Amino acid sequence: MIRVAVVGASGYTGGELLRLLAVHQGVEVKMATSREYAGKPVGMVHPNLRGVYSMNFSQFSVDKLGREVDTVFLALPHGVSMNYVPELLQIGIQVVDLSADYRLKDPSLYKRWYDLEHPHPDLLKQAVYGLPELHGEELSGAKLIASPGCNATATILALAPLMGWREGDRFISDVKVGSSEGGAKPSEGSHHPERQNAIRPYETEGHRHEAEAEQELSRLAGREVKVSIIPHAVSSIRGALASVHSWVSNVEEVEVWKRFAEFYRGKPFIRIVRRGFHPYPDPKYVIGSNYADLGFALDSRLGRLTTFGAIDNMMKGAAGQAVQAFNLSRGFQENEGLKIPPLRPG
Amino acid sequence: MIRVAVVGASGYTGGELLRLLAVHQGVEVKMATSREYAGKPVGMVHPNLRGVYSMNFSQFSVDKLGREVDTVFLALPHGVSMNYVPELLQIGIQVVDLSADYRLKDPSLYKRWYDLEHPHPDLLKQAVYGLPELHGEELSGAKLIASPGCNATATILALAPLMGWREGDRFISDVKVGSSEGGAKPSEGSHHPERQNAIRPYETEGHRHEAEAEQELSRLAGREVKVSIIPHAVSSIRGALASVHSWVSNVEEVEVWKRFAEFYRGKPFIRIVRRGFHPYPDPKYVIGSNYADLGFALDSRLGRLTTFGAIDNMMKGAAGQAVQAFNLSRGFQENEGLKIPPLRPG
Amino acid sequence: MIRVAVVGASGYTGGELLRLLAVHQGVEVKMATSREYAGKPVGMVHPNLRGVYSMNFSQFSVDKLGREVDTVFLALPHGVSMNYVPELLQIGIQVVDLSADYRLKDPSLYKRWYDLEHPHPDLLKQAVYGLPELHGEELSGAKLIASPGCNATATILALAPLMGWREGDRFISDVKVGSSEGGAKPSEGSHHPERQNAIRPYETEGHRHEAEAEQELSRLAGREVKVSIIPHAVSSIRGALASVHSWVSNVEEVEVWKRFAEFYRGKPFIRIVRRGFHPYPDPKYVIGSNYADLGFALDSRLGRLTTFGAIDNMMKGAAGQAVQAFNLSRGFQENEGLKIPPLRPG
Amino acid sequence: MIRVAVVGASGYTGGELLRLLAVHQGVEVKMATSREYAGKPVGMVHPNLRGVYSMNFSQFSVDKLGREVDTVFLALPHGVSMNYVPELLQIGIQVVDLSADYRLKDPSLYKRWYDLEHPHPDLLKQAVYGLPELHGEELSGAKLIASPGCNATATILALAPLMGWREGDRFISDVKVGSSEGGAKPSEGSHHPERQNAIRPYETEGHRHEAEAEQELSRLAGREVKVSIIPHAVSSIRGALASVHSWVSNVEEVEVWKRFAEFYRGKPFIRIVRRGFHPYPDPKYVIGSNYADLGFALDSRLGRLTTFGAIDNMMKGAAGQAVQAFNLSRGFQENEGLKIPPLRPG
Repeated sequence: MIRVAVVGASGYTGGELLRLLAVHQGVEVKMATSREYAGKPVGMVHPNLRGVYSMNFSQFSVDKLGREVDTVFLALPHGVSMNYVPELLQIGIQVVDLSADYRLKDPSLYKRWYDLEHPHPDLLKQAVYGLPELHGEELSGAKLIASPGCNATATILALAPLMGWREGDRFISDVKVGSSEGGAKPSEGSHHPERQNAIRPYETEGHRHEAEAEQELSRLAGREVKVSIIPHAVSSIRGALASVHSWVSNVEEVEVWKRFAEFYRGKPFIRIVRRGFHPYPDPKYVIGSNYADLGFALDSRLGRLTTFGAIDNMMKGAAGQAVQAFNLSRGFQENEGLKIPPLRPG
Repeated sequence: MIRVAVVGASGYTGGELLRLLAVHQGVEVKMATSREYAGKPVGMVHPNLRGVYSMNFSQFSVDKLGREVDTVFLALPHGVSMNYVPELLQIGIQVVDLSADYRLKDPSLYKRWYDLEHPHPDLLKQAVYGLPELHGEELSGAKLIASPGCNATATILALAPLMGWREGDRFISDVKVGSSEGGAKPSEGSHHPERQNAIRPYETEGHRHEAEAEQELSRLAGREVKVSIIPHAVSSIRGALASVHSWVSNVEEVEVWKRFAEFYRGKPFIRIVRRGFHPYPDPKYVIGSNYADLGFALDSRLGRLTTFGAIDNMMKGAAGQAVQAFNLSRGFQENEGLKIPPLRPG
Repeated sequence: MIRVAVVGASGYTGGELLRLLAVHQGVEVKMATSREYAGKPVGMVHPNLRGVYSMNFSQFSVDKLGREVDTVFLALPHGVSMNYVPELLQIGIQVVDLSADYRLKDPSLYKRWYDLEHPHPDLLKQAVYGLPELHGEELSGAKLIASPGCNATATILALAPLMGWREGDRFISDVKVGSSEGGAKPSEGSHHPERQNAIRPYETEGHRHEAEAEQELSRLAGREVKVSIIPHAVSSIRGALASVHSWVSNVEEVEVWKRFAEFYRGKPFIRIVRRGFHPYPDPKYVIGSNYADLGFALDSRLGRLTTFGAIDNMMKGAAGQAVQAFNLSRGFQENEGLKIPPLRPG
Repeated sequence: MIRVAVVGASGYTGGELLRLLAVHQGVEVKMATSREYAGKPVGMVHPNLRGVYSMNFSQFSVDKLGREVDTVFLALPHGVSMNYVPELLQIGIQVVDLSADYRLKDPSLYKRWYDLEHPHPDLLKQAVYGLPELHGEELSGAKLIASPGCNATATILALAPLMGWREGDRFISDVKVGSSEGGAKPSEGSHHPERQNAIRPYETEGHRHEAEAEQELSRLAGREVKVSIIPHAVSSIRGALASVHSWVSNVEEVEVWKRFAEFYRGKPFIRIVRRGFHPYPDPKYVIGSNYADLGFALDSRLGRLTTFGAIDNMMKGAAGQAVQAFNLSRGFQENEGLKIPPLRPG
């Protein structure tokens, strides 16, 4: 049994980790920390977990973690994880960090995208970008996993099979996302009367997930790839669909199909969607699961290729993917704790 | 390994059974029948199950079932199950029937409530009403399980602890339900532009679930209990909340609380909700799980007691409860296949 | 042209008043006050009103109102309007108060229900409860109109025709309401991921609208009537449905129907709903309008009568009703500014 | 008073026309035809219009129309209007056709896009494409108005100011649309449990509105423009947002801003959105109105320009725009019948 802790466990991502780890047969959740709710029962903050956990939230303490756990899942805001990671690693704790703090390899990018100097640039090399479909082997034994962002995950998975081919290297990822992406803290924009029925573009000019998407896709392509991500808030709670557009010429469907089929062969959480009643990926049909449904549409008259990536942003876009990467790092079955199929209808 | 089949597997309830049975460690799903989709892949009709099942739907055949399975889950319309059950029992197959066909003990009630003569009144005695919180012991070894209706489940669970006390025996169950209760077949009323944002009373005069609710509650009370159920369609997809109103006198909160706590002691899928940020049951926080969250509100100025029952109508209101009852009948752990906690947010 | 001001114009009710008054042919909106947004354009806070109003919000000032307007609509929190009203009346301004501050005739009730001593009990007599279907004549020339609460409106309209009959005088109003009832200020409970898909009881024990409902209904009945209101938050943004339950004996449908038809004869905003594809009131079909759709369902087996009141809580439940009452007070056509039919689908 | 009829009045677009014409001060609605519901009350099919119209639906009859009306609004499926138009024109009736049947100038395009031979190619020249912001002058006195498609309207309005500039002529319009776009007829895809929470691409390869969008934009540009429209079904009922993407170089915000401001100067239904709490167009804030909110976002790092067009698809995307064009054709004020501001919240 691996003993684990979830740090920052009162937010949505932390709660989702607790939900998944509760049915993971290889772990024991020893601790859930929350500055705001320390001393309060987990089930008070997460009413879905009433009766599932009897523990209370505790204060974050490196010492206590050192004594009690083997792995820490960090579900903290960007800029906060940064400082905890080195200490945790030093005392031998494996870290799965769900913030952006260790996703980028080039330290200078933190300045540009997150407006901060990275205090531990050396650790960036050690960190494994936790997208198991791209870094499966590196994850084995990884001590520091930097779990990807949701919009980046949907975009990267929709584009990876096209990397390095003869067509262009500039893409527009028009993402539609549910309200859970914004986290558990209320705001004017998340107020139900304003958020429901919205189709609202946001962070339209320089979305931060572009940095990690370009890093991963350029690596795959072997040359510089550019991705402009433009998210739109839509009415659902969970779910993100990336529609990634590009102009192509002389491309036929069968070629795209083959690239996807080959690239993702044997990947348990990838489903390639192309035929039947539901011929395109729709996040609706992955809700509650770690699947990424991928597909594409080719407008041959104009040469517009759109590849689609549909995920549950709380799962494959956050907690589910973190558990998947953790599983690979520890030699568990890749889908341990992630077996329940998506809801329908849901 | 118990070999099972789901009959009527292309509807929502059938699909939900397949979803749960896929992760049940004591069963093997051998067959999924559908008249309409026989020969088509399960994942074509249930896009959530793409990659989960590789089988095709097959035609219903008693012979084939007899050769291949031990237990059949019937997810068929009312009036259809009726005729299949005796044959299946006769060849030794255990039947979990999710229709209303074997729920009522008194054959004459089928005439009154369902407008049909029951062809096998003798089997009604044998059938166990599959509400495990009330019939846990009878379920052990049961050959024919009549799985309860969703609105009946929410109503019965919200009322059971009050049965037989000094207060009155007449209740109004004002139920609010999501759209999945209507099944998978499109209609004018389920058309999204008409259904979304609706707060629509329906079947307001003689809802059929009253029959089974009154049967079960009267049995518990040891005297005749009357329940008027009035459902309202609201915007969610999953979820049902029964707000069961009655007039009381000289009742104090602590008494109600105690009755609930004692009645449901040790029941793994019952959560009694009374304090904290979410002091009343809300189906939102049981979605995807088999929990029933129960609670109450006492308006002491006027003597109005409202008890609440919140369930996921697809789970505790249908497929989840069927699996729970099946587990007890076969000696499995009560929550086998039903372990994943509810979604949040969802 | 009546010159009007909306005080507290940055909230939802204030914004809805501005929206309606913009097309009212007998008024000119001279001022919209907001403490928080004074100096900012109306269209910045209310994006729906961009291009409709070119004015900025201003600070509240009795002097300025005295110079510039004839009527003030107060869209302020309970307890705040109280203090402004006397001054405004004294300088000859008509007041339409949308708070609860002048709704109750008996000053002692403010202590019990709102926990405050009413500073101007004398004005309570002068105030007209602005439900035009009950107080149409008194409204003519009224100087102080106390506009009713939304849940009270739906409940009173659904019950008024039954008052004074031979049946009982105790009712349970199970109300289902959209999220706009909570106002424009974000909170944990209004956070979209928590609020969407909720079916959440709240203020279950002593909802304040009971006070005004009992006042109005008892007056109609000529004897003491008790109403227990229990609201439930559901997923829509606009809309409230009151399902008002009571036990009756020897009541036939035709009698109820007649009482409704006679009571509301000639009332332009009341629609009695009983037949056709949509046999019960559903707030969905009044959205954007000032209609109240009323109807009922009689469960004759058990003697449960449910009467329904469906309104758009922002319109007949707040701003629309205030404009309707204002119209009657000033001799305008009752539906001036309120002519646009409800949306469908919407 | 212009006497008008709505043909095909039982669908959503027909109902919306009836809703708007009910408050239009220059028209009298003499007839509403429906093959399916002839003889039935208008309010039975459109519950929002109960009490608004007392008339019944009637059968379509050219003779009767000839005797009783001056203008006919055709809300019929594509391919059906085609055949009625010539007869109606011949007997002197003005036709506002909301189908696609007279939108395209080049008859050969009907073959390619709608797979039918146009039976009256001569009338195509006479028809005025009813987008008032582009064809205001031609609409004056127009006898045949071809009212634009919803996705085409959102796309054209978002692109028109850019036409003919130095940048490229190839665009991707990623549209997000509510469920009312699919009309009033239920289907598997519109079934609430399937449609709610969907983010579902459809008609991804050759959406028919591309034909009219390219016609209008090429005309404006003076050269051939290509637009690939890819719609996505999202959860709202009303509302469409076109996010129109293109790659640009050396473009600055101020230039785009100026082109929009100048192009739409004085257009009463265009609102250009750029600053404040809601810096991008969101269809949410035009619901119930005829406004089109336009705006843009420039990703200067990568040279991605996105222009946005947000409309209520039932209004500016269908019935509202038809009334607006009719107003111009008859010399009414452009916003007659269209004055009510959008809902908020809604």
